[in-house]
Amino acid sequence: MPVRITIVCWALVAASVFAQSPDPLASWNEGPRKKAVLDFVAKVTKEVSPDFVPVAERIAVFDNDGTLWCEQPMYVQLAFALDRVKAMADKHPEWKDKQPFKAVIEGDLKTLAEAGEKSIVEIVLATHTGMTTDEFAATVKNWLVTAKHPKFQRPYTECVYQPMLEVLAFLRANGFKTFIVSGGTVDLMRPFAEKVYGIPPEQVVGTTFKTKYELRDGKPAIVIQPQLDFLDDKAGKPVAINKFIGRRPVMAFGNSDGDFEMLEWTAAGSGPRFGMIVHHTDAEREYAYDRKSHFGRLERGLDEAAKRGWLLADMKNDWKVVFPPTK
Amino acid sequence: MPVRITIVCWALVAASVFAQSPDPLASWNEGPRKKAVLDFVAKVTKEVSPDFVPVAERIAVFDNDGTLWCEQPMYVQLAFALDRVKAMADKHPEWKDKQPFKAVIEGDLKTLAEAGEKSIVEIVLATHTGMTTDEFAATVKNWLVTAKHPKFQRPYTECVYQPMLEVLAFLRANGFKTFIVSGGTVDLMRPFAEKVYGIPPEQVVGTTFKTKYELRDGKPAIVIQPQLDFLDDKAGKPVAINKFIGRRPVMAFGNSDGDFEMLEWTAAGSGPRFGMIVHHTDAEREYAYDRKSHFGRLERGLDEAAKRGWLLADMKNDWKVVFPPTK
Repeated sequence: MPVRITIVCWALVAASVFAQSPDPLASWNEGPRKKAVLDFVAKVTKEVSPDFVPVAERIAVFDNDGTLWCEQPMYVQLAFALDRVKAMADKHPEWKDKQPFKAVIEGDLKTLAEAGEKSIVEIVLATHTGMTTDEFAATVKNWLVTAKHPKFQRPYTECVYQPMLEVLAFLRANGFKTFIVSGGTVDLMRPFAEKVYGIPPEQVVGTTFKTKYELRDGKPAIVIQPQLDFLDDKAGKPVAINKFIGRRPVMAFGNSDGDFEMLEWTAAGSGPRFGMIVHHTDAEREYAYDRKSHFGRLERGLDEAAKRGWLLADMKNDWKVVFPPTK
Repeated sequence: MPVRITIVCWALVAASVFAQSPDPLASWNEGPRKKAVLDFVAKVTKEVSPDFVPVAERIAVFDNDGTLWCEQPMYVQLAFALDRVKAMADKHPEWKDKQPFKAVIEGDLKTLAEAGEKSIVEIVLATHTGMTTDEFAATVKNWLVTAKHPKFQRPYTECVYQPMLEVLAFLRANGFKTFIVSGGTVDLMRPFAEKVYGIPPEQVVGTTFKTKYELRDGKPAIVIQPQLDFLDDKAGKPVAINKFIGRRPVMAFGNSDGDFEMLEWTAAGSGPRFGMIVHHTDAEREYAYDRKSHFGRLERGLDEAAKRGWLLADMKNDWKVVFPPTK
């Protein structure tokens, strides 16, 4: 394009952008956390800034459970697994007398909680593996349109945090690539992450099961095996970031100690780095929990955030609204 | 931006693009293969076309060895490993008397070839693991600026195929995301793929070693372990595509039977799909090999390409030039 036309075009674009320019973080109250996000993005995107980061290196990673969507009273993935046990019970008559399935079918959450982690793994394997990836994705999509959050009585995909959706959009508008790096499984997140978060499947990193390529009736299929491939939590998160993304993020957002190493790895890079922890302080509009929570426990992060220069977003005081308007 | 300004801008852009419009595949001779690439991209990018593919789904995957760069007389990764053995020999005096290292140090390729795959694995583990990811990336970068291809006497990063660079750029200009899906290790490819192919680290899929996150002198590091994590070859390729990309590609490019399942998986998707195999037919300008080659053997692909609707790019007759101009 001839230089003069280019300049005219850019001038028109710039003029119209400035004319509109709504607040990109409208759901954040004015204060140090909102300012920190705006200031950081301003300094890394200004070419004359000593902290300038080229577009290709603008990688931002987000935990999912408790950072982008609600993880109480239990992880959404666990709610899905429990619902699946009930839905699959007809085809598994033996579950009526077999723990932990019996407890799930009878809604006996006390017995289930006492049964511990091994039982949860058993339930997850029974409900998440043994089918093709396409079949599982269809099951997730169906569930997400019917299941409702017990407290908020709205679909789980509407129990996402409006202020964080704004951060995602704001970063992308400033040349960042946004990734999910979650302890949840990729198979559960990919069917909705693009529509709900604007994050495409290839930018969803998470826990995986082993899979197998095979021909079913002559048609290629990828079948999910009942064997863990990779657990994307704690020190697994920087390992996954290296494996899947291959460069160190500039910004990291988490909410629990499962995100500690991801924030640590991000912050230890040279040049400007940004770490933020969503602190659940809002018992009324969402939940208030940290050190003693079973899901999304936050202890070390709370103790060390200040000295490490990570921000604690205070849900109750920093967020004007928690969830987007109902659809 | 107001609608009228948008239209004016786009009209100016479109006019100037058409005014210039150089041949995007200038290094391809006119013929059915060049036409197939151009026609396919035209039909999937035209919104009114029944074969239209939205931008988000425009995923194209490329094998690396033999598809994007030269894999003869041996895989570049193997040449790197052999050079590393020599460079590291000072620190490993025991290698002088220990096979397969002895053979490498003495340049005895016959003994090495006879030693078989187990020895190769031993050499690869000794040269690719035990250091941090940053250290390994620095070693690769140093090697790539000094090592030269034995036949072409130019850096390996200039033994890439100019016609394929044009395909990569052409697809990206049409909204495709281009990925490498290679049997080579990601650690070897990422340090050069962005500069040479325009493919960022997060779009490089390949073989991986297990890694471990640890603090070294209080500084976080990711250390490569002497254990294979995932072999990205044959049926491993669709498995990796599912794991890393999470959606089925629309186009796939390979050159050996190691790419068969990747092409098969791509082609089996609904809607328009494109598969191409680079056939090495040019003994003079590059190499001629297929069914009997030790590296990049192509047998099943050659037998089945026609009936599966995959194109065979004939290097000798389809490509005007093989490599880019020397730098």
